[in-house]
Amino acid sequence: MRYSKYFLPTLREIPADAEVISHQLMLRAGMIRRVAAGIYDILPIGLRVIRKVENIIREEMDRAGAQEVFLPSILPAELWQETGRWDLYGKELLRMKDRHDREFCYGPTHEEVITDLVRREVRSYRQLPVNLYQIQTKFRDEIRPRFGLMRGREFSMKDAYSFDRDREGAEKSYQAMFDAYTAIFTRCGLEFRAVEADTGKIGGSLSHEFMVLADTGEDRVVACKLCDYAANLEMAEVAGEAGKPGKASGKTIEQVQTPGLKTVEDVSEFLKVNSDDLVKTIILSGDGGPVGVMVRGDHEVNPVKVRRIVGDDTLDLAEPDVVAGVTGAPIGYAGPVDLKIPLYADHAVSVMTDFVTGANEADAHMINVNLAYFEISSFGDLREAVEGDPCPRCGGEMIFLRGIEVGHIFYLGNKYSKTMDAVFLDENGVEKITEMGCFGIGVGRTAAAAVEQNHDSNGIIWPMPIAPFQVYLLSVNPSENSVMETSEKLYETLTESGIEVLYDDRDERPGVKFKDADLIGIPLRLTVGKKALAEVKAELKERATGSDVKLPIEGIIDAIKDRLA
Amino acid sequence: MRYSKYFLPTLREIPADAEVISHQLMLRAGMIRRVAAGIYDILPIGLRVIRKVENIIREEMDRAGAQEVFLPSILPAELWQETGRWDLYGKELLRMKDRHDREFCYGPTHEEVITDLVRREVRSYRQLPVNLYQIQTKFRDEIRPRFGLMRGREFSMKDAYSFDRDREGAEKSYQAMFDAYTAIFTRCGLEFRAVEADTGKIGGSLSHEFMVLADTGEDRVVACKLCDYAANLEMAEVAGEAGKPGKASGKTIEQVQTPGLKTVEDVSEFLKVNSDDLVKTIILSGDGGPVGVMVRGDHEVNPVKVRRIVGDDTLDLAEPDVVAGVTGAPIGYAGPVDLKIPLYADHAVSVMTDFVTGANEADAHMINVNLAYFEISSFGDLREAVEGDPCPRCGGEMIFLRGIEVGHIFYLGNKYSKTMDAVFLDENGVEKITEMGCFGIGVGRTAAAAVEQNHDSNGIIWPMPIAPFQVYLLSVNPSENSVMETSEKLYETLTESGIEVLYDDRDERPGVKFKDADLIGIPLRLTVGKKALAEVKAELKERATGSDVKLPIEGIIDAIKDRLA
Repeated sequence: MRYSKYFLPTLREIPADAEVISHQLMLRAGMIRRVAAGIYDILPIGLRVIRKVENIIREEMDRAGAQEVFLPSILPAELWQETGRWDLYGKELLRMKDRHDREFCYGPTHEEVITDLVRREVRSYRQLPVNLYQIQTKFRDEIRPRFGLMRGREFSMKDAYSFDRDREGAEKSYQAMFDAYTAIFTRCGLEFRAVEADTGKIGGSLSHEFMVLADTGEDRVVACKLCDYAANLEMAEVAGEAGKPGKASGKTIEQVQTPGLKTVEDVSEFLKVNSDDLVKTIILSGDGGPVGVMVRGDHEVNPVKVRRIVGDDTLDLAEPDVVAGVTGAPIGYAGPVDLKIPLYADHAVSVMTDFVTGANEADAHMINVNLAYFEISSFGDLREAVEGDPCPRCGGEMIFLRGIEVGHIFYLGNKYSKTMDAVFLDENGVEKITEMGCFGIGVGRTAAAAVEQNHDSNGIIWPMPIAPFQVYLLSVNPSENSVMETSEKLYETLTESGIEVLYDDRDERPGVKFKDADLIGIPLRLTVGKKALAEVKAELKERATGSDVKLPIEGIIDAIKDRLA
Repeated sequence: MRYSKYFLPTLREIPADAEVISHQLMLRAGMIRRVAAGIYDILPIGLRVIRKVENIIREEMDRAGAQEVFLPSILPAELWQETGRWDLYGKELLRMKDRHDREFCYGPTHEEVITDLVRREVRSYRQLPVNLYQIQTKFRDEIRPRFGLMRGREFSMKDAYSFDRDREGAEKSYQAMFDAYTAIFTRCGLEFRAVEADTGKIGGSLSHEFMVLADTGEDRVVACKLCDYAANLEMAEVAGEAGKPGKASGKTIEQVQTPGLKTVEDVSEFLKVNSDDLVKTIILSGDGGPVGVMVRGDHEVNPVKVRRIVGDDTLDLAEPDVVAGVTGAPIGYAGPVDLKIPLYADHAVSVMTDFVTGANEADAHMINVNLAYFEISSFGDLREAVEGDPCPRCGGEMIFLRGIEVGHIFYLGNKYSKTMDAVFLDENGVEKITEMGCFGIGVGRTAAAAVEQNHDSNGIIWPMPIAPFQVYLLSVNPSENSVMETSEKLYETLTESGIEVLYDDRDERPGVKFKDADLIGIPLRLTVGKKALAEVKAELKERATGSDVKLPIEGIIDAIKDRLA
């Protein structure tokens, strides 16, 4: 492609409304333009990246035995009413009425539509398993759309839905998608981790997020330095089990005044003890009533884990009035002694002696507390992981990373298939409910995450597999006949060799061209200038490493082919 | 692809709600399923056809120098208000409000969005011309969506928009698109005509519809048997010019009673003359007042032509009260004599003598009328073409065909660029308005039109270039070891040769398989059965011609490659 004819408007300045680096760079490199909040035009060079990501996805999904379909974007309310999501979804669902006053929405996800299709067409176990996917535009009316393609309202997503005869089959389908996703992000040239994730309200027990690692990522990932184990913070297991406390000092339990001191930091400083000599008692409330959760002073309670152990999905940090009702004190003074609600404690508490707790009274704490003074319903892994924890799989050291979620896979069970009656007859003619999984990849988000992971102060550094072009051919001074002729010849030869070239044939100053080349971030830059040309050479530079070599024109095509291979 | 694992639900019965053949066959062949009125799931085998059409379009658009973009589907009302189309578009525009109560619509076309993009990014004549296209989902809330993909509400369209410095450039862009469309539909393997079309309210003078020819087509096309000339009925030129009347008989003009006789047929029969001895006087009214249009009794007036000659775009057939006001008589008795409005006459009238007209009085006509008795403002081509007319280009015989509009190209001029201020600076630094063209292809409609054109009573007959697969490999009895082994081997070899095979490995009766093969309509059927296998042969059959041959297994891959080449 000749730059002089290409619709590729680059920007020197950082656009005022772009907060994150991928948004800034994708605007500056002429990939996208804003039409409305969270709604973008994708320009030619941006679309080339998107199409490469799509093609990698498509090939790996097909290889995994999934079949591509194309479902509508405008969906009838009736289907959403069947599962109750018409009411549950809230304002993120873009709703509308057609000319006959019938209600529709713009699909933010397609479980209902695909389940409706499968229940109409699948009757027999012989038609299962089936995994159907599409690459389709979604709309989610985010309250604060921002960050360009990272969190738009209208966005492209690959969504897949598997249907199996039983849980065993569904787990196979899940694993096939796990492997396909691993292949996809590997082939995109991205550094990523598959992270154990909470299944939340969807239920089931299997869910992984695929996180592209980047310092600018919004999500915190807890990962093992040695093995593959990784989880998002709310899911990260902490190794260990309940132990036995050491010998207590024998000092008497005692109430001390701690006026206005509510935090671990303030109390430990005042009492001249370490923060890990304190035990925090956190009150959570839910439909099953309030519970108290004890974690060591330097740890944080993890509500997801509490919900699972208690068996109450509705548990959340209690409001101040609930805390006051339970403890008789304001927040910051809860303690286990004489507390009349079920108590749960983290493993780390099980070995503690002579610790400090709240006194269930304003401005007061207890010292020399021991486990004998109250009853624990159960010990468990109830805290958030911290850096340096041992890996629950291999014992290696756990570190914190930042990531951008680009894919999410779920084992759904029969949540949708049961409600919507997606059944089949098994080998014995018995009607059974299909087991489902759902599997998403944000297409534009993957491109944006690639930029977050791969850039420097000059611009984007595309990984080769999703780069918009492979070679940026830069003609330093096209008004020089020899430069122009050699550039044209190289452009022709490269193109004929099937290499994707953006040929900067513009009549612009060299500085402008070099800046644009760095900004756009094509992996290889081939520069044709007068000086090197005098030696019948041209310069080949790698965007990622900055390494450059002058090579004889004659062998330069082969040198490029070598680097692409 | 193995049929046993393919999501391909075929139907034996004709679905009750499908009126046209392509809708019936696309449902029956498992290509589409209905989600709501005019809204469809596209199933795997349907998507394969769509993708093939898309790829042909994409290659030819790129070859023509157009650049692919991807514009949003949800568009802000502000852009549509700028051109006034927010109000003009009516109920076909699907409108909605987002969570902040801002107005949006689902784009039925993208002139506003693309013009907004270009006005922001193009400043100089050096950035022109540019032609941007996308393949994107549109929504038009048709009052009566029907015919499957032929006229859906949600549908896929390739839309392109060209921007040029001047009319000359815009005409070049138009011609490039005309050529690209010709290449696209030729490559799709379709019989089609490029048809001159009315530019209607869009203005300008260049517009062509690309019509796939099919007996079931909704549109009437007037085409020359010898040359490329074709036009839709409302645009078809009639060759000829005004002549001079022959010598009149000298008989006196006379009023005759024709009680209750209003039609040409009734009057000519009653008066014992031919219908081409009558002249019809048709009253049209518009903003510029009523006019009378005279055409020979066996001809029909063409309002599009009248509008152009009179220079009043609002002209249409007059309501009865207007006719009564102008003629003093009910409809059916208008005549030119003493009529006090401007009179226009078709060329064919210019040579007539002693003809019959209405008398501007109920139940009365005039006979022995001649042109001398009234004044004609001008003669012109004012009638609809009829079969047998000479071609206006080459004099060949004109015939009527039926067609399905699959593409439409328009020279737009500055209709949108002027309103939306899409300007550039020319070589002299003078601000000029860009000249635009717009160019559409219905993607799903092209697939449906292919079915309308290519089918028989057993099912679809896909043209090879857009067939979902190239070969249907039919294993007659997979429970026979030799049949199964040979089929598997052939499947493997064909797939390795890069040939697209649907392999019917199902454990079904042969009759079911042969019926499905015909219904789905893959161009080549390779049948492996016990009987032929005894001679180490298999049967190769062409879906289109029905011709079949038994060939030695050994050479069968080469035979297939030959037919694909």
